[in-house]
Amino acid sequence: MADTELFPAEQLFEFTVGVFRHFGVPEEEARTAATVLQAADLRGIDSHGVARLHSYFDMFTLGRIEPRANVTVVRESPSTATVDGGNGLGLVVGPKANAIAMEKALAAGSGWVSVRNTNHFGIAGYYVLQAVERDLIGWAMTNTTKLVAPLWGAERMLGTNPIAIAFPGLEEPAIVIDMATTAAAYGKIEIARRAKKPIPTGWAIDKSGATTTDPNAMIEGGAMLPLGSDRERGGHKGYGLAVMVDVLSAVLSGANWGPFVPPFALRQEIPTRSVGKGIGHFFGVLRIDAFIEANEFKKQIDEYVRTLRKTRPAPGTTGPLIPGDPEREAEAIRRREGIPVVGPVLDELRDISRQTGIRL
Amino acid sequence: MADTELFPAEQLFEFTVGVFRHFGVPEEEARTAATVLQAADLRGIDSHGVARLHSYFDMFTLGRIEPRANVTVVRESPSTATVDGGNGLGLVVGPKANAIAMEKALAAGSGWVSVRNTNHFGIAGYYVLQAVERDLIGWAMTNTTKLVAPLWGAERMLGTNPIAIAFPGLEEPAIVIDMATTAAAYGKIEIARRAKKPIPTGWAIDKSGATTTDPNAMIEGGAMLPLGSDRERGGHKGYGLAVMVDVLSAVLSGANWGPFVPPFALRQEIPTRSVGKGIGHFFGVLRIDAFIEANEFKKQIDEYVRTLRKTRPAPGTTGPLIPGDPEREAEAIRRREGIPVVGPVLDELRDISRQTGIRL
Repeated sequence: MADTELFPAEQLFEFTVGVFRHFGVPEEEARTAATVLQAADLRGIDSHGVARLHSYFDMFTLGRIEPRANVTVVRESPSTATVDGGNGLGLVVGPKANAIAMEKALAAGSGWVSVRNTNHFGIAGYYVLQAVERDLIGWAMTNTTKLVAPLWGAERMLGTNPIAIAFPGLEEPAIVIDMATTAAAYGKIEIARRAKKPIPTGWAIDKSGATTTDPNAMIEGGAMLPLGSDRERGGHKGYGLAVMVDVLSAVLSGANWGPFVPPFALRQEIPTRSVGKGIGHFFGVLRIDAFIEANEFKKQIDEYVRTLRKTRPAPGTTGPLIPGDPEREAEAIRRREGIPVVGPVLDELRDISRQTGIRL
Repeated sequence: MADTELFPAEQLFEFTVGVFRHFGVPEEEARTAATVLQAADLRGIDSHGVARLHSYFDMFTLGRIEPRANVTVVRESPSTATVDGGNGLGLVVGPKANAIAMEKALAAGSGWVSVRNTNHFGIAGYYVLQAVERDLIGWAMTNTTKLVAPLWGAERMLGTNPIAIAFPGLEEPAIVIDMATTAAAYGKIEIARRAKKPIPTGWAIDKSGATTTDPNAMIEGGAMLPLGSDRERGGHKGYGLAVMVDVLSAVLSGANWGPFVPPFALRQEIPTRSVGKGIGHFFGVLRIDAFIEANEFKKQIDEYVRTLRKTRPAPGTTGPLIPGDPEREAEAIRRREGIPVVGPVLDELRDISRQTGIRL
């Protein structure tokens, strides 16, 4: 296995564009898709960047994703639209649908777009930052392949179904909330497995439905737990949020939901039934000045951020962070120093390079 | 102290109407307000029903709430509005603002209303059920007086800031998510204190910011913890959700946010500053057929509910519930058998009766 290496963001970007181009994705769309993956790597969400390129590679190789997808609006109203992604890359369909939500918001005060027949769209945070750059409030959600048990269930029925929302400040950076609706990230369970370490209670159950601290017991037929973990600490709430994301993204658009969401990686099982088309996303945009002077809002967000930063710290901590702080700090470092690619991912990128002839 | 007694819902309703009328709330608005409180008692959310009547009584007595409030739209777009509640009862302002969101949704596909200069609005679930009755998807949020520490903070900075959302089914009952963004309800901490029992870890911190299982340590200068409880189990996510609710409800409308939200009960401290008017709510409504045939959506919700009910149960449980199940079951029982009013609340109602001359 290779050692971890640092790559300039631009180098990984061009490689990613090349891989998508190799499968026939049009130039501009390949660059959009690579931008979304790069955003994950820059913001330190390593699981959603080039670490996923081999899965996209596999899906294209098997013909499971359309490289030149026809993205269409199948129904709309002044402030809403339903988009069919034509089974394209979520990294291309997502930005197009999000742009429609932004256009609707500019015209009607808000824009809400539910998307079907699409594939994994990268980090939800990318989309809400697109809105923030235009002084809008952005929301993004997506459903994902089942990994999570509903509270009191013993099997995987729901995805990790993330929610993101962002609010722009004037002098302070935006508040950027971007969270899976689970107690922990799946990537952390994989890391514990590789390190042969136990995971904290509250993260997972084994295949019998009992709580476990063994990462293997989760990965081999067990399930992740929703945010809140158990009944006492509000596990029914994380479960409810996962359902909310699933219904808005998939039931409202006509995509597959719950245990019927198709897999993204090769080793995942194929669902027994199809109840819609592809997976689903949901985007929302609010025009700030439809509610209040945009400058007044942004000044209050500055004040909000400063007030929270002044919170008296809990013992052993440096005090509360503002949602989005860790990712922004990661981006500053990685733009300067490069993106660390761990050994197993580097091996995968080299495999893609070998099979496609594209130089890494 | 009185013993717990069962009351027919209608009897508590008429008493509540009488109390609001006593302070000069117009007849129709008093009935609306009593309906919202009754919904909490019927649905088993005892902390938000007549248990709060003495707080409303105190606020009216002190002249802190306007009985005949002027509720106005101060800004609007085709799909959004900002409402000023004229410092009225949240139980009256909330239903009016929610009605505006529903009207906007019928006309523009969606409707989003942020509300300032209002007071506590009862259970968020009431508002989303109003939307569901009209075959709409409803959201409701509100900020509340500070009780919760941001993750890694040692003091109260945020409210319990609930989120509700509901999706109508065809033959199955609606999915109704209604949750505070905390690990547990404040009422449970009060119950533990009265019973002189410890609370689970993950619910609260003491005034030094250290985790505690002593309910007194939370109540006397400590704070509640956000959903997720600690860093390992996603406490930053519950904190992020509380911020989201606060910004949408209060920063977007021009209300007070975070630690500056005015108190509802007499014994709570008055904030050092005012950064807006009153507290804030946020309502959203989506017209289903702006996205997909309403019947198709509702059939899929039926299928969704049935699929989740078939989840293999975790050991020692009867399997996952559907969000809204416990409240619907409580309502069926309480409509038949009456609403149990516990001793301390009954004493309060009798005190109101004595002071107003309204017969209980």
